[in-house]
Amino acid sequence: MSNGRKRRVSGCPIDYGLDIFGDRWTLLVIRDLLFARKRHFKELMKSPERIASNILTARLKKLEERGLIARCGDPDNRKQVIYTLTDKGRDLTPVLVEMARWGGRYDPNTPVPKSFVTRFARDNDQLIADVCAAMAGAAHKVKPRR
Amino acid sequence: MSNGRKRRVSGCPIDYGLDIFGDRWTLLVIRDLLFARKRHFKELMKSPERIASNILTARLKKLEERGLIARCGDPDNRKQVIYTLTDKGRDLTPVLVEMARWGGRYDPNTPVPKSFVTRFARDNDQLIADVCAAMAGAAHKVKPRR
Repeated sequence: MSNGRKRRVSGCPIDYGLDIFGDRWTLLVIRDLLFARKRHFKELMKSPERIASNILTARLKKLEERGLIARCGDPDNRKQVIYTLTDKGRDLTPVLVEMARWGGRYDPNTPVPKSFVTRFARDNDQLIADVCAAMAGAAHKVKPRR
Repeated sequence: MSNGRKRRVSGCPIDYGLDIFGDRWTLLVIRDLLFARKRHFKELMKSPERIASNILTARLKKLEERGLIARCGDPDNRKQVIYTLTDKGRDLTPVLVEMARWGGRYDPNTPVPKSFVTRFARDNDQLIADVCAAMAGAAHKVKPRR
């Protein structure tokens, strides 16, 4: 919190979420794990928003502590850690979908075609599939580690 | 941003939203304008999360600049300012609803009954109506200004 004052927990379910992901970065990390299928720290570092490594480390730690992600060893490379979403993390999909829909509608500079937003106005499954496909394309630019 | 570094705008519609409301407080202000029907600064100050007045002032300024709220004079009291959501602000309703649904499901300490979450699992209109009714009840505790 900007003024360092201890924040009061209200019991509001919206407030519960904001206590976990109420910042500029956490939902972007979840976005990348969910839609772009990123799994490694270095992949997450390559998001177009340029997250700083110390911020990414802190966010991953908090997400693990709060049960939204799990970390395990990469069976292909024991020195590497893989991050995956838990059910609790994956269940934020509707929140991200609605945020994408809103941003697609109101961002005057978005590269997302308006037809994309209107066509999938209420078809969440198709929207999610398309977002995944679009982000998988972007992920191909990430240099593979093996 | 915690490290003061200029954040890169990526063009991602999720990132567009987080650039506006990616903090712990902004969506709580929108929640109160939307569901609790609050309109005045002093009412917004009385949220159970205890927002600081300087943070509330900054958030309201940003929300107005980004077109999510409008401010006008109170016809009943010219010295007062009324804050109302624009269409752009109101269109965040699905984001808040999904966040409430997620928090209601995963917060072990939530006072929201699980039956509330499951009963309205996909009925957004009913969920919104119930949230509004619940928050209107809470708003009655706010001392009226006239």
